[in-house]
Amino acid sequence: MGIKVQFDVLKDTVKKAFLNMGMPEDKAEICAQIHCESSADGVESHGLNRIPRFATYVGKGWVDLKAEPELVGRKGAAENYDGHLGIGITNAIFCGDRAVELAKEHGIGIVALRNTTHWMRGGTYAWRMAYKDMIGLCWISAESCMPMWGSDKISVGNNPLCLAVPRKKGPIVVDMSFSQYAYGKLGVYRLAGKQLPYPGGYDKDGNLTTDPGAIEETMRVLPIGYWKGSALAIALDMAAAMISNGKCGSDLDEEARGSCTGCSQVFIAIDPYLFGDVESLQAMLDRRVEAADNAHPVDERHPVKCPGEGTLERRKKSMAEGVNVDEQIWSQIQGLAAGAMDVEDLASK
Amino acid sequence: MGIKVQFDVLKDTVKKAFLNMGMPEDKAEICAQIHCESSADGVESHGLNRIPRFATYVGKGWVDLKAEPELVGRKGAAENYDGHLGIGITNAIFCGDRAVELAKEHGIGIVALRNTTHWMRGGTYAWRMAYKDMIGLCWISAESCMPMWGSDKISVGNNPLCLAVPRKKGPIVVDMSFSQYAYGKLGVYRLAGKQLPYPGGYDKDGNLTTDPGAIEETMRVLPIGYWKGSALAIALDMAAAMISNGKCGSDLDEEARGSCTGCSQVFIAIDPYLFGDVESLQAMLDRRVEAADNAHPVDERHPVKCPGEGTLERRKKSMAEGVNVDEQIWSQIQGLAAGAMDVEDLASK
Repeated sequence: MGIKVQFDVLKDTVKKAFLNMGMPEDKAEICAQIHCESSADGVESHGLNRIPRFATYVGKGWVDLKAEPELVGRKGAAENYDGHLGIGITNAIFCGDRAVELAKEHGIGIVALRNTTHWMRGGTYAWRMAYKDMIGLCWISAESCMPMWGSDKISVGNNPLCLAVPRKKGPIVVDMSFSQYAYGKLGVYRLAGKQLPYPGGYDKDGNLTTDPGAIEETMRVLPIGYWKGSALAIALDMAAAMISNGKCGSDLDEEARGSCTGCSQVFIAIDPYLFGDVESLQAMLDRRVEAADNAHPVDERHPVKCPGEGTLERRKKSMAEGVNVDEQIWSQIQGLAAGAMDVEDLASK
Repeated sequence: MGIKVQFDVLKDTVKKAFLNMGMPEDKAEICAQIHCESSADGVESHGLNRIPRFATYVGKGWVDLKAEPELVGRKGAAENYDGHLGIGITNAIFCGDRAVELAKEHGIGIVALRNTTHWMRGGTYAWRMAYKDMIGLCWISAESCMPMWGSDKISVGNNPLCLAVPRKKGPIVVDMSFSQYAYGKLGVYRLAGKQLPYPGGYDKDGNLTTDPGAIEETMRVLPIGYWKGSALAIALDMAAAMISNGKCGSDLDEEARGSCTGCSQVFIAIDPYLFGDVESLQAMLDRRVEAADNAHPVDERHPVKCPGEGTLERRKKSMAEGVNVDEQIWSQIQGLAAGAMDVEDLASK
């Protein structure tokens, strides 16, 4: 069941929950803001819904609430940090911001982060780079959660890739993983007794299916574009591990800790105004978005949109009407905030 | 019908064809090599098969055989070139190589090319960067050839994206467009009277179909991952046009010239050995590839492979046994090489 909670109430409660876990005040402020923004943007799966799991990870020692990213190498427009298993959000924000600073100086900047933890919603860092007037590109190397194409066993991460273009009228932002549906989404459809709109994986007989429960059973989630998504996911995995001198997906598989624990991430910022003026480049973007949005729709009730446009609409609605929150999750977060339930309680569940 | 032709014979003939079109000797040497390598690697669609179409483009004035890329801007690790509608291959090679040089100096380098022409096989430049010990990333902004998600009319390019990781035992290289199948592939299946292995688009009744002819009729080719591939394609389009101060997809649509005529391209090279030593990073890559390749196969006869591994096998086979060439294409290229058929002949067809 979903209920609506005002953003400020939500953020205040989430921040208290983080403080109760032992998170320093400055990090709790940032993490509360980001988790609540993700839910407000409609990405509940990586916003509020992740907080109980985050608490269990803290309890298991998979996240060090006080660690800071440490510079371990620097050359020209590139920097490398060790995340020391610090908070995924604050580590990633730091590195994304560093990439922006490097891009201001060199035109392009890259920051490779190793040994970090789950960054929650990848789009956070792409949106942030776009709002700093940069083209932002970031991706991760994660543990396996989907089969390589041709395999029936999980063997590659769905390694999210995010790309943001800084448009004044609203950034164009893609935040995608390489599995057609997240496991969370499969569960949502199954609980609602619904079929997926498009095939999302294979059943136990090896047939493509829209039955979410049948896919959860086999864990044979489908890479987007079949062989194509599988190929890009494994290449991004290797690229991230290589640049960051960090762990690749199969290293993480061997460690068998929580999702993204010890993973590698890459943040690239590109100054888009190096070779053209703001006005004409923004006019080009507006022209492009207009042409795309005016593409003849399959269904007149659902006009075409560029990625990010829907997010801004949802954000506005959430700010006006309250943020949608799952009732059970909200109750758990309130428990964490009240100190009635600590991370060990959650970890033991 | 496919026949086998020895690489050297092929290259010699193709070079003569290019010289007959009026291409300078140095460029003809490079272009012949690249087109033949693409066919040898099994990418005939963007190798030999493109030469007749290239000839017609030359005839129509859509490619300037003598133009050179011109530096129009430079800042730090970033450079911008105007391709002056020169040969797509030589323009792209120049820019990819410049990105590598910039990366050697700054750790990462980006070259944005505008007003260029079809680069043929995008993977060419990613493979090349990998063989220069760089992680290579490149993509383009092309004219529309598939519908945006939610539209039933072509409204975005399939904007190929290539990513290469420099592995000593064989680079890992992805070269993918964002449509599930190229139009060329649909034609191949239709002519063979075969259904596609997976749905590739929509028929006239709006149903997903594996019937290649039904998709050719509607032109509703499917983006990979449905909404996901559509989103990444449009964002890549805007990013390329913005960085290069060049044309976006809808600008190219308005000009209605040949495929990729006047398009924008981006080349990013990243030094992978900035923060780790060659030996340990290569060991990590080998470990990752081994884990992926050992993933339990759906069918024991078809072991899992990482992207690029199959290409190297095909290349080796082509070099030993001859390169597979379509008989009709070969006859056209021989005609061009003998001077019996000039570009105006082809353009008038």
